[in-house]
Amino acid sequence: MKNCFQFILLFGFYACETPVPQNEASPKVNPQKVTVLTDLKYPWSICFLDENDVIISEKDGHLLRVDLVSKNKQIIEGFPNDLADSIRIKDRRDNSGLFEIVKHPAFTQNQWIYISYAAQNEIGTTTKVIRAKLTDNQLDDIKTILVAEPFSADLFHYGGGMVFGLDAKLYITIGERLYHERDEPPLPIAQDVRDKRGKIYRLNDDGSIPDDNPDFGPEAQAGIYAIGIRAAQGITMNPEDGSIWFSEHGSSQGDELNLLKPSANYGWPIKTTGKYRNQDYNPPEMEGTDFEDPVHYWLQTIAPTGLTFYNGTAFPGWQGDIILSGLSRGSLWRIQLVNQEVVSLEELFVNDRIRSRKATMSPDGKLYILTDEPTGKLIEIRNGR
Amino acid sequence: MKNCFQFILLFGFYACETPVPQNEASPKVNPQKVTVLTDLKYPWSICFLDENDVIISEKDGHLLRVDLVSKNKQIIEGFPNDLADSIRIKDRRDNSGLFEIVKHPAFTQNQWIYISYAAQNEIGTTTKVIRAKLTDNQLDDIKTILVAEPFSADLFHYGGGMVFGLDAKLYITIGERLYHERDEPPLPIAQDVRDKRGKIYRLNDDGSIPDDNPDFGPEAQAGIYAIGIRAAQGITMNPEDGSIWFSEHGSSQGDELNLLKPSANYGWPIKTTGKYRNQDYNPPEMEGTDFEDPVHYWLQTIAPTGLTFYNGTAFPGWQGDIILSGLSRGSLWRIQLVNQEVVSLEELFVNDRIRSRKATMSPDGKLYILTDEPTGKLIEIRNGR
Repeated sequence: MKNCFQFILLFGFYACETPVPQNEASPKVNPQKVTVLTDLKYPWSICFLDENDVIISEKDGHLLRVDLVSKNKQIIEGFPNDLADSIRIKDRRDNSGLFEIVKHPAFTQNQWIYISYAAQNEIGTTTKVIRAKLTDNQLDDIKTILVAEPFSADLFHYGGGMVFGLDAKLYITIGERLYHERDEPPLPIAQDVRDKRGKIYRLNDDGSIPDDNPDFGPEAQAGIYAIGIRAAQGITMNPEDGSIWFSEHGSSQGDELNLLKPSANYGWPIKTTGKYRNQDYNPPEMEGTDFEDPVHYWLQTIAPTGLTFYNGTAFPGWQGDIILSGLSRGSLWRIQLVNQEVVSLEELFVNDRIRSRKATMSPDGKLYILTDEPTGKLIEIRNGR
Repeated sequence: MKNCFQFILLFGFYACETPVPQNEASPKVNPQKVTVLTDLKYPWSICFLDENDVIISEKDGHLLRVDLVSKNKQIIEGFPNDLADSIRIKDRRDNSGLFEIVKHPAFTQNQWIYISYAAQNEIGTTTKVIRAKLTDNQLDDIKTILVAEPFSADLFHYGGGMVFGLDAKLYITIGERLYHERDEPPLPIAQDVRDKRGKIYRLNDDGSIPDDNPDFGPEAQAGIYAIGIRAAQGITMNPEDGSIWFSEHGSSQGDELNLLKPSANYGWPIKTTGKYRNQDYNPPEMEGTDFEDPVHYWLQTIAPTGLTFYNGTAFPGWQGDIILSGLSRGSLWRIQLVNQEVVSLEELFVNDRIRSRKATMSPDGKLYILTDEPTGKLIEIRNGR
């Protein structure tokens, strides 16, 4: 390059002297937070119908349709009345409410959106996924896609993360719903294929079971794609290769980033990279069982949740990296992969922490985070350089 | 730049067609390790006399003069015979041996180098700093600059980090030398200005005391610049602003990055971001004492040691960042600062860990690390992009 410049200057092409590429002019990135929306009640997920027409789920509020330009928010009507409305539930560890929203790959043709949430009945609550037709601010033709029975009194580890694969199948994370290992049955919930909890599902867009799902045996619940899940929440797809990645909360440390593989067993509670809440808990032996290792685990608690693959242009050096929200201490991570292996991890905004529930990309490649706050925000991460 | 290329192509200067600016061709960095030297016995420090003529201290070996081109290593003769030769000391926690080497800012005129090491006498060992005139592979005119009495039987936390400031003063880290807090006297060593240990020193190039050093009172040891140090090792200067930064090992967690300030008290053992080795240890109250907070502390143990400010061209996005070696799990960190505040931390080579003692820059801006191994290496970090 240098020779080229000298060559040019020799010939006096001064036009070439000034405009240097941005990365040469200022090679350092300078991520800056720009608040786009405020007053969201613990926002959980955002679904881009187009660049500025979005649906946002408030964990402790409503399903909203929002215009990011006018900031106009409208409540989407017609939501099922079995929502475990966490506004009325006062429990320190209450995780209930509205969770993920994803649109069907052919949304423009069928207007189908998928919503996961904590549903309740007279016994308790559990994770439920519905499909609905969205017209303006109205949900119709609601179809139940998954109900992760049993309903129980517990109010945590619902999971509820969803993503469509390149195969147009819907992948869903369902948590184990236990808080204490001491409450595990002899065959732990996440290891019991007869139990719907603590699993990852792969379903057709109508909730039916794909013919090519892995076989967990005659007693297995329908739709199970992977087992041994404690409290997976965030799940996303790498648009480059279609691989699906999910985050998982450990009990004490043991927070993980995992690559989803069919019929894999992610080990909970037999195998964990963290410690048990109940020091005296002894999981059963499971000789001969293969457990899938996480791609990465943290030595400290970060409480990983919503994640995405960066494919924007504002941060050219981040292309193909995972951006992951951590609730604990409000950490945001950039994870560089090579051949599906983590080569480096960068914790961003160390001096400007905020609990975020989800990191996501817009259709035009803007990076956004949703903050986990009673008056939460939608924040765009721009390059201030 | 693009316009420039089009312009060039119009005129058919194909010579310019191929070499596109690195950052446009591939915006992602791709740090790669290239081994430059092998068979170094726990190398601790490297001092560049010029780009390829270096002095390397082997903690468990010798002071070597090495030609990085021919790889020729020669033992430097004339080293004092009071070196606590850790080759002969067999203790799991033995930290003795040769430590830092720095050259005088006017080395080309006076050939002075400064060496820190564990010196021994009939009582035990302690940290010692000498100045010597280097001619070829021979040390002469050896002058003692600092002896951190008392000598003791303990074999750890010597400190020994050294750097010259823009003020041409020599800054030296001296550890507290204790392993257990329960062995602290009523007034802890690092808090006692009458005790030479657990301090950072600022000295003239002949070991005398600068007139403008902070005043710690009539009983204070000469040359003390800051106190409250447990086990600081790495120390470096930011060439951009002359600020001096040092790393510090915590007891259980509590690993820190600190900005050096005159007369500052860094708190040990009264105030720590980690836990005590001895759970039952209760430090004395010290009301009215101001303790300096670290610029950053880690929640996990990383064992931070040698650090440097990146000022090379291979990684334009890293300019001005701290590169820090962590012994624990073999971690290497890139720390981005804005206004002397940490804005992000990236752990590098997560999938290719190696214990490193020091990260340093060559005069031409190459980034090197020294690995902490019985047959250690000098490794250059190149951008494989």
